[in-house]
Amino acid sequence: MNQDYIKPDNWSIIEKGFDAESVKSSESLFSIGNGAMGQRANFEENYTGATFQGSYIAGIYYPDKTKVGWWKNGYPEYFAKVLNAPNWIGIEIEINGENLDLNSCTAVRDFRRELNMKEGWYHRSFEATLKNGTEIAVNIRRFLAMNLDEAGVIHYEITPLNKDAKIVYKPYLDAGVTNEDANWDEKFWEPLDVKHHGNEAFVTAQTFKTHFKVTTFMQNSILENGRNLNISPSNFETTVDKIQSSYAVIVAQGKKSAIQKIGGYTVSLNHDNTYTAAEKVIQQAIAIGYDQLLQDQIDAWAKIWEMSDITIDGDVKAQQGIRFNIFQLNQTYSGKDNRLNIGPKGFTGEKYGGSTYWDTEAYCIPFYMATKDQQVARNLLTYRYNQLDKAIENAQKNLGFKDGAALYPMVTMNGEECHNEWEITHEEIHRNGAIAFAIFNYHRFTGDYSYIPEKGLEVLIGIARFWHQRANFSKDKNQYVILGVTGPNEYENNINNNFYTNYIAKWCIDYATEQLVKVSLEYPSDHKRIIEKVKLSDAELQEWKKVAGNMYFPKSEELGIYLQQDCFLDKDLVPVKDLDKAQRPINQKWSWDRVLRSPYIKQADVLQCFYFFEEHFSKEELKRNFEFYESFTVHESSLSPCVHSIQAAALDKMDMAYAFYLRTSRLDLDDYNKEVEEGCHITSMAGTWMSIVEGFGGMRVKDNTLHFAPKIPKEWEGYSFKINFRNQILKVAINHNQTTFSVDGTKELKIMVNGEAVVVSPAL
Amino acid sequence: MNQDYIKPDNWSIIEKGFDAESVKSSESLFSIGNGAMGQRANFEENYTGATFQGSYIAGIYYPDKTKVGWWKNGYPEYFAKVLNAPNWIGIEIEINGENLDLNSCTAVRDFRRELNMKEGWYHRSFEATLKNGTEIAVNIRRFLAMNLDEAGVIHYEITPLNKDAKIVYKPYLDAGVTNEDANWDEKFWEPLDVKHHGNEAFVTAQTFKTHFKVTTFMQNSILENGRNLNISPSNFETTVDKIQSSYAVIVAQGKKSAIQKIGGYTVSLNHDNTYTAAEKVIQQAIAIGYDQLLQDQIDAWAKIWEMSDITIDGDVKAQQGIRFNIFQLNQTYSGKDNRLNIGPKGFTGEKYGGSTYWDTEAYCIPFYMATKDQQVARNLLTYRYNQLDKAIENAQKNLGFKDGAALYPMVTMNGEECHNEWEITHEEIHRNGAIAFAIFNYHRFTGDYSYIPEKGLEVLIGIARFWHQRANFSKDKNQYVILGVTGPNEYENNINNNFYTNYIAKWCIDYATEQLVKVSLEYPSDHKRIIEKVKLSDAELQEWKKVAGNMYFPKSEELGIYLQQDCFLDKDLVPVKDLDKAQRPINQKWSWDRVLRSPYIKQADVLQCFYFFEEHFSKEELKRNFEFYESFTVHESSLSPCVHSIQAAALDKMDMAYAFYLRTSRLDLDDYNKEVEEGCHITSMAGTWMSIVEGFGGMRVKDNTLHFAPKIPKEWEGYSFKINFRNQILKVAINHNQTTFSVDGTKELKIMVNGEAVVVSPAL
Repeated sequence: MNQDYIKPDNWSIIEKGFDAESVKSSESLFSIGNGAMGQRANFEENYTGATFQGSYIAGIYYPDKTKVGWWKNGYPEYFAKVLNAPNWIGIEIEINGENLDLNSCTAVRDFRRELNMKEGWYHRSFEATLKNGTEIAVNIRRFLAMNLDEAGVIHYEITPLNKDAKIVYKPYLDAGVTNEDANWDEKFWEPLDVKHHGNEAFVTAQTFKTHFKVTTFMQNSILENGRNLNISPSNFETTVDKIQSSYAVIVAQGKKSAIQKIGGYTVSLNHDNTYTAAEKVIQQAIAIGYDQLLQDQIDAWAKIWEMSDITIDGDVKAQQGIRFNIFQLNQTYSGKDNRLNIGPKGFTGEKYGGSTYWDTEAYCIPFYMATKDQQVARNLLTYRYNQLDKAIENAQKNLGFKDGAALYPMVTMNGEECHNEWEITHEEIHRNGAIAFAIFNYHRFTGDYSYIPEKGLEVLIGIARFWHQRANFSKDKNQYVILGVTGPNEYENNINNNFYTNYIAKWCIDYATEQLVKVSLEYPSDHKRIIEKVKLSDAELQEWKKVAGNMYFPKSEELGIYLQQDCFLDKDLVPVKDLDKAQRPINQKWSWDRVLRSPYIKQADVLQCFYFFEEHFSKEELKRNFEFYESFTVHESSLSPCVHSIQAAALDKMDMAYAFYLRTSRLDLDDYNKEVEEGCHITSMAGTWMSIVEGFGGMRVKDNTLHFAPKIPKEWEGYSFKINFRNQILKVAINHNQTTFSVDGTKELKIMVNGEAVVVSPAL
Repeated sequence: MNQDYIKPDNWSIIEKGFDAESVKSSESLFSIGNGAMGQRANFEENYTGATFQGSYIAGIYYPDKTKVGWWKNGYPEYFAKVLNAPNWIGIEIEINGENLDLNSCTAVRDFRRELNMKEGWYHRSFEATLKNGTEIAVNIRRFLAMNLDEAGVIHYEITPLNKDAKIVYKPYLDAGVTNEDANWDEKFWEPLDVKHHGNEAFVTAQTFKTHFKVTTFMQNSILENGRNLNISPSNFETTVDKIQSSYAVIVAQGKKSAIQKIGGYTVSLNHDNTYTAAEKVIQQAIAIGYDQLLQDQIDAWAKIWEMSDITIDGDVKAQQGIRFNIFQLNQTYSGKDNRLNIGPKGFTGEKYGGSTYWDTEAYCIPFYMATKDQQVARNLLTYRYNQLDKAIENAQKNLGFKDGAALYPMVTMNGEECHNEWEITHEEIHRNGAIAFAIFNYHRFTGDYSYIPEKGLEVLIGIARFWHQRANFSKDKNQYVILGVTGPNEYENNINNNFYTNYIAKWCIDYATEQLVKVSLEYPSDHKRIIEKVKLSDAELQEWKKVAGNMYFPKSEELGIYLQQDCFLDKDLVPVKDLDKAQRPINQKWSWDRVLRSPYIKQADVLQCFYFFEEHFSKEELKRNFEFYESFTVHESSLSPCVHSIQAAALDKMDMAYAFYLRTSRLDLDDYNKEVEEGCHITSMAGTWMSIVEGFGGMRVKDNTLHFAPKIPKEWEGYSFKINFRNQILKVAINHNQTTFSVDGTKELKIMVNGEAVVVSPAL
């Protein structure tokens, strides 16, 4: 894929020309979603070329039996696979007796895809000559309703160009789908029931083992030149897991024929009777009507953009990049449902499985916190609170920990760990720190303390207990150490005293201890309730403090840096710039042991600590550590460039900051890692947002006040973003001459700009 | 299984009474082999109870496609599975119309198994009452001919006890067998041809992918009261991969009826035409006749025991244990064929796969060197020499090493690496050291230097080059370090500066350098040939020396010990004696991260270094290191107790030495690790031999002279062993009063006993 494949455009993702080689990549990039479901941009009609079929429903997964070469004690029984859900978008098209298939047409002209991010729809058009000589023009618009989030709509329009055509529309529902990512080629869906009446059809299936029941439905209308013909299907073909109806029409040359297909899912997570729920959704959608559904969609996205848009002037690619990131984040997670979370591929692919990683707390929460109602971030915190019991069980079962120590899973769908590489599953324990940090961050940003006495404190206690038990006293160092971990830099495994891990461990204990005091003073009844529930004694607290107060941190006095881990300086310290380009990406070129003993860093690790706890360190320290570690960082994680971009901006290394920004914002659009066909990197997209707002904008929250230190890349004319700070909407617009702050509503807002107090008054 | 299950006996392994629960364990313990093939003690007749079927042919394997959960770059494409070979032992038995099956008989009496180690045969007898009321006595003897090593013989004798019986013998050959250990449930054998004539039958099959062609054959005779009835089969049933013949006889009550089945394999490794080769083997076996085959077997084993027996007086269990170990080693590897090696389960199971581990060099060579002609050990060295090219390719392909650096595989069948856990495959590189050490050890013991200029030096150079390239200079330490390894103690992964690894790395370079000098002086034409072949420059040699001369070794001055690795003293150093027994074995009770960060040691690591290089360290150092590390060693590897036993003996800790001896010698017989049903621990059996000869006997070779420091456990009255030292056979007999040395032949032998020179004169 080259960088011209996606056309630069401020508001849309546009592909022009049909290239079978790009189909799978485009299926990822043009994916649509509405928080409750999503789908790759698979063709509606038959396609016999290479494709990666994917439809996904939030919260629905399959516990695929673990597959490993060598079983290690403590591996979970299953890996929670993101499930390819029943297909409701399929419409076979027969034109004068020939099945439409872009892979077998004699010609395909003017093929174009557009993902209109402003209005939230996906459009595809082309002209094709079939083998039987019929020429047709095709226009398809598809969207998943943001408001009526169990439904989507397809408007599939065909115009015969050179002759009249008999068109047979054969829309179908198919629960006989498979996953590309399946350990044992098992079937994941058990068909239960197939029903139809009138223009409606329903396939109900449930997942094996997890027994999520899903009714997949469709309702079809046939139109000519925009007018509903009100015809009924001539035929229904059904199998145990598929139903297909047929509508045959004769269309005169030049006339526009169309099928409108309403489809979607109702699931047992939300309904006792998924079938009657599906009936109701269809009725609602029909009542609203296609045109109004589209208008509602445009309005819903306008509302989203109103708050979350970032504008960039003078750099279309940068503008397109950030909007693509913001669009995907909003497609993936709406924040309405605290049972859901933000999967690394969202609704764009199956890879990695699970829905919840530390990405949520470390990268995503700041975006949702600043661009949504604070309830959204609170829901993400509550998700973890609701899984606290499972985290306690995890620490108990696998590590023999006790008294309510909690280890949150590396990957999960339901609170149970489902990842299975010992070096990650069992050792990448720093994830626990990010979960505590998110509670702190939520309070810092929103000022809403109530979450902590209500729920957060219990999570903080479980996590503090974990660190207390996980550290051990080294007689040799006369300090507490944390042995055998994998830090954020996954290119090191089973290391001792990862600086980031040790630092956040100490911080977690300190923070939990402080909150215990604060809650005891300010929310005594909550304090009493919690202490009784978790049985926390003063003696235990003293033990915590011993660990936190005497934690060991590896450092080099000579270099003035913290060490990523013990013995880091024993490595052969050849910086990335001196590494032969043919050796990169190292994770594709080198055996794992070479990667591990090299000095190369996958993603920010010590620097991640500086990002979280910036105010604990001086600018000088940041500079020394940044310059040391940046020189060894290969950024082979999508989560890496954003932190480097923010810190480069803070250090006035604007060229570097801009380069990192482009890399993070156009990672998928320009397919830096040659893997976008597997899906997009959703969680890192929130990091892109941070690069602008926290990086270039220099936004921080200190002492209940927003701070800014605005900078602008020389490549840009100006940029703007909005922040929902404690229910006041602040707009920040920055160009090379000035920064303009404006605030909605009637109340003024005190902020700090480059260390000076500024009062932003509302426009009158 | 309890410790009374195997009856104590000096020469035999005996089981009494039929216990369906023990069948799989007994199938392992009563396995037979002749170096070229072997088989678990599966019943000949049908058995519908739990069984683990296994027949194995040396050198025949299947490259089973690698199965891992998360692919890591550099993993081999396949794992070489020990193949369950076609079954030739099967004989279905019909008694008065009922199929004999011990699982469905109404009564089984006097069931007894005996593995007669002295004479090399396996016998099984029982009386059974069938459901049809017929009572029979059954006696079966089976052996695999040591001399005619492509053939085995079964004498299966039935006596009807309470009535006349119509007996139908249905001997068969079956290539439709499967492996228990198969990654993808693939079929490993492709049937090619089924033939029969007269009393002979042949099934030819080949392995998929590797295309080893194997003709499995049988020839059957029916006897009554010992007289061959010379009858032909009434019937042959054939399928594509199985052939079964039928012989029906009427046997009067009290008469002995029998079938003699000659069977075995001829393989394309040894024959162009495996079918005609099989014909020839049958003819040879018939010409010799059953009685003489048995006598030859007894004679062959007498010859083996004559040289390799160890006697122990006053401790039947210890006696039985050591003989079982010696017997199994001789069954597994005869040393005739330098394409073969010593698999960890020999011919007793499938587990682990591959045939060659560092076990061969570290544990097995001393046994074969001292009890066989020196050609046997030389064949084992040559095996590695023949695989040098593959070891060079391995280092090149996976590590990017150059100029002929060689990394021998962790597990192999043909020189290619086939193991696939990164922490083992890529990091357990110390194996290279043992391969070099074996060359040194061979020369030290045999005095045969010719191997080094002929072959060994090239191996030493490849290995030295590996260490030179694998170490890196640490600016921080100002020394060379070796990062990211797994040492012999596999309960640590990806550690830095494993003392054992660093030490043997330095030693390998030093030893290769010395041999280069010696060969250049003493074998100048070999030196020239090799230097030209491997393109070794003086500059490279100087680089080697820099690494070896400035290698870093972790140690604690305070404790006076070497450290197993950097930061070992940071661990929570709770000795094994204070570890809750319920937590053991830790590899079954703990998640892997807990195992890793614990101080517990799977097998000797620093102590393995002291074992190899005893003379480099003082007794005081040994004592300090032994006492420190022994206290943390859980011996969850079969390879651990022997080294500890030898060192305990050296340190006069005789009770400890004896306990370790028992543990190693009866590991399988007493099923310490509750896993003998998977097969026996063959390679560790050589360690048992070392425990006596090097441990209690204190045998060492220094300066071309055998040294002894005889000790005896208080539990024993006396013990004796023989050593083939440079073609002189020395017998050593030790009791509480004295040690008696005697030498065969006419030449005296100078030895050292407790530091004093002794001349052993031959008896006149």
